[in-house]
Amino acid sequence: MPKAKVYVYLKEGILDPQGKAVHRILKNMNFDQVGDVRVGKFITLDFENNLPDAEIGSQADEICRKLLANPVIEDYHFDIE
Amino acid sequence: MPKAKVYVYLKEGILDPQGKAVHRILKNMNFDQVGDVRVGKFITLDFENNLPDAEIGSQADEICRKLLANPVIEDYHFDIE
Repeated sequence: MPKAKVYVYLKEGILDPQGKAVHRILKNMNFDQVGDVRVGKFITLDFENNLPDAEIGSQADEICRKLLANPVIEDYHFDIE
Repeated sequence: MPKAKVYVYLKEGILDPQGKAVHRILKNMNFDQVGDVRVGKFITLDFENNLPDAEIGSQADEICRKLLANPVIEDYHFDIE
């Protein structure tokens, strides 16, 4: 079954409170060599068989724009496998 | 700055209510060719310069096991860039 693996993440420069929280915990755990942490989403969309890659890419892009990502603060990319 | 890109996702067979919710919304939006949706996390860890890849990999693995993933229900993998 073809899949689109989608990655959604905050744009550079947008404050990431969840990432900051993870960073602080890592400092408390003595992982001192981690400089910054950003937390995003990783979404797998399974598509029906026999859909051409171009059609999967077009649908995945539309799904990202309309539902999965907030284009004001988030960027996304996806791979088709 | 070297980065570890970490992907955390529910193991196969574990019910994913967030993925089911996205799937239902996609059906309502007439994306009928999406068969299943799984939602996970995508975390970027920035490491200090001059750390060898082997050390980054070892720390990233420990961070996944101890903090980012729940090994009972989640799997993870990471790439070093």
